[in-house]
Amino acid sequence: MKIQPVKGTRDFYPPQMAVRNFIVDGWKASSIRNGFVEYDGPIFEHLQMYQVKSGDEIVEQLFNFTDRGGRHLAIRPEITPTLARMVNKQINALPRPIKWFSVPRLCRAERPQKGRLREFFQWNIDIIGVEDVLADAEVVYCSLDYLRSVGLTSGDVVAKISSRRLLAALLKNIGIAEDKLESLYPILDKKTRIPVEAFVEMLGKEIDSTDTVQTVLKLMDVHLVDEIPDIVKLNEEAKVSLDELIQVFAYLRTMGVEDWCRFDMSIVRGLAYYTGMVFEIHDKAGDLRAVCGGGRYDNLLSDFGGPKVTATGMGMGDAVLEILLREKGLLRDDSLDIQKLDYFVACLDADLLDKAVNITAQLREKGHASNFSYKTGALKKQMKVADSMNAAKCIILGAEFKDSKQLVVKDMQTGEQELLDAESLFKS
Amino acid sequence: MKIQPVKGTRDFYPPQMAVRNFIVDGWKASSIRNGFVEYDGPIFEHLQMYQVKSGDEIVEQLFNFTDRGGRHLAIRPEITPTLARMVNKQINALPRPIKWFSVPRLCRAERPQKGRLREFFQWNIDIIGVEDVLADAEVVYCSLDYLRSVGLTSGDVVAKISSRRLLAALLKNIGIAEDKLESLYPILDKKTRIPVEAFVEMLGKEIDSTDTVQTVLKLMDVHLVDEIPDIVKLNEEAKVSLDELIQVFAYLRTMGVEDWCRFDMSIVRGLAYYTGMVFEIHDKAGDLRAVCGGGRYDNLLSDFGGPKVTATGMGMGDAVLEILLREKGLLRDDSLDIQKLDYFVACLDADLLDKAVNITAQLREKGHASNFSYKTGALKKQMKVADSMNAAKCIILGAEFKDSKQLVVKDMQTGEQELLDAESLFKS
Repeated sequence: MKIQPVKGTRDFYPPQMAVRNFIVDGWKASSIRNGFVEYDGPIFEHLQMYQVKSGDEIVEQLFNFTDRGGRHLAIRPEITPTLARMVNKQINALPRPIKWFSVPRLCRAERPQKGRLREFFQWNIDIIGVEDVLADAEVVYCSLDYLRSVGLTSGDVVAKISSRRLLAALLKNIGIAEDKLESLYPILDKKTRIPVEAFVEMLGKEIDSTDTVQTVLKLMDVHLVDEIPDIVKLNEEAKVSLDELIQVFAYLRTMGVEDWCRFDMSIVRGLAYYTGMVFEIHDKAGDLRAVCGGGRYDNLLSDFGGPKVTATGMGMGDAVLEILLREKGLLRDDSLDIQKLDYFVACLDADLLDKAVNITAQLREKGHASNFSYKTGALKKQMKVADSMNAAKCIILGAEFKDSKQLVVKDMQTGEQELLDAESLFKS
Repeated sequence: MKIQPVKGTRDFYPPQMAVRNFIVDGWKASSIRNGFVEYDGPIFEHLQMYQVKSGDEIVEQLFNFTDRGGRHLAIRPEITPTLARMVNKQINALPRPIKWFSVPRLCRAERPQKGRLREFFQWNIDIIGVEDVLADAEVVYCSLDYLRSVGLTSGDVVAKISSRRLLAALLKNIGIAEDKLESLYPILDKKTRIPVEAFVEMLGKEIDSTDTVQTVLKLMDVHLVDEIPDIVKLNEEAKVSLDELIQVFAYLRTMGVEDWCRFDMSIVRGLAYYTGMVFEIHDKAGDLRAVCGGGRYDNLLSDFGGPKVTATGMGMGDAVLEILLREKGLLRDDSLDIQKLDYFVACLDADLLDKAVNITAQLREKGHASNFSYKTGALKKQMKVADSMNAAKCIILGAEFKDSKQLVVKDMQTGEQELLDAESLFKS
């Protein structure tokens, strides 16, 4: 019986696992460097968790099931609802500010395509309880700090930043009703990914006036703050939102990453829950989906039955990131160590195997990563195994040990050999 | 709307996440020290994967579902079938010996109880392609090496070791048919967990002769190899199996862990796929479920459509382990750092916030874990935040900076303060 893996999932053989660890370890290091602490939730939650505020797209993509107790459950497609649930539960006990990160495994039942898988890993950072847009800037900074740490530059990627609050104010100002906004956002979010005709047609279904559709089109193309008043007159709410956004950019300049950042009204984000700054980081060539995205979501905790607490955060998946890092030559399979040993213990004579096993056990007890050879005899074959395991040193048990209890210790890099007794070896 | 987590799952708030990381990081370190390389598979597989050879108990405990393509899938309750599938697929390309480890998240739809959860983490190590019982001994050694590394002693835990091969030979020798064995193993495995009357009754349903039941009972109580021939005459197969088992103990002596190991015929393991050495590690007091268990499974790869390749391995869950470590005082919540900062940047004046943000960004870029205070003003409050984040040093931006661009750098351990300009700070 031969069974295949499920479509859209990945098998992580040691070389692929090394890539995943390289990515995940980098995410964790950046999170810790930026003062976030780690949390996680269960791999599945009650189905209704994802029906609250996550947008139709995600709910359609759920792997859901019913357990023996009749509970309707779903494998998590994102971790933000879990975060909201957890924070709400301990809201009075948690030390503020809450700066949390997680690297959840997530599943979405979508058609697998480039940069989109049915199972993936996603780095999440969130700052909860800080109203100042300083927290928004910090989320963008932390995302960029990671990308910089793996070798990307402002020539490779760009953080496109906008504001849902500003967008809402402008849309209302041109006559679009408040209750239309939620259905408009997913359409506006598609703008850069579909032909303009299709986009206009979709807008036309939501907005009656052709003039208004044209104004929206113009707005989506704005890349300079100064151009907005030429298109829509700014009311008070729009002015305040714009000032906030300008402050985000000021903080990003203070943080030294202004070269990586750009205002872009077409950044909307599909999810319904954003309320303020929104951003996405894209490859500059524009060939790939967003590397990451996020923003401020001030109502999510109260939507989940908690108090009104402000929040801002970001999610970065591993699939698009890996494609980008490979394209830029920053991730090559031959650059990652799948294994690294301190010692490989070779054994030329079956009589000495017991000694080889004993020495290896002692090396391990001392904390040295070590392997022995299961096969005794021909040295050449054992050296090949030692090499394949990336051993720094090889200990050879042969004639020298039989004659005078001496171990041959070979440096695998230089080829140099020395003779040692076992005792001196364990002292090192 | 208030939603609870699903029964039997855990929320990992930062303190619980620190515990999980402590356990998982220890598992990974032991694996690497013992020469294993990491792999992982998907969180769900085709349902039939678990119907092949995993025993009825596990199949009953599956969370299964049907995707939009009509595929019958299940969240993994164990990773060994995935391992078999993956190894089979690349059997000719993989360098031997295959020494792999993984720390999968697993789910079982069982009633939550002490040491058993519906979602848990399990350390798995497997050696594939080594026929010598040296590999069996190495699996036991590696499990013990981890337990020793976290502070447990041979006074706390014991590795109980037996052999399925020996058991099968003995059972057949007392007249039990080969095709009865598979249904007998799960019953024998329950022996130490149920009253003897219930055990005898269960045996009686499978074995007709009361004498034979009594002989099985006696066998299950054997703790010394020498006692076996008094109960059952050893045929050739039993002799060979016994010699093998004696060799496992000889290797464990060579590895320096004989004090931790004991022969125990009552160790059977419920799963159908074991074929040779089997073992479990228990707390010596016997209050808890097994900390880990494993053994040789020489037919699993061929059962999954691959060639006949020998294999041996072990799985250790986090739930029982955590209970044991807490009982022994080796895991205290106050002994784990939830967070550790190199610097906390405090700011006494709102005018200086920008500078604080700028300094923090530079510290982070240099690789120092750092946070700034979102709130300026009262130093005492900011110091409390710095303390709660476990900051090694606190940088204070106040009058000294306004007067002469000097930073106060306070060592949070000693309380000592020094004045530095920003430039000298970044040199360190």
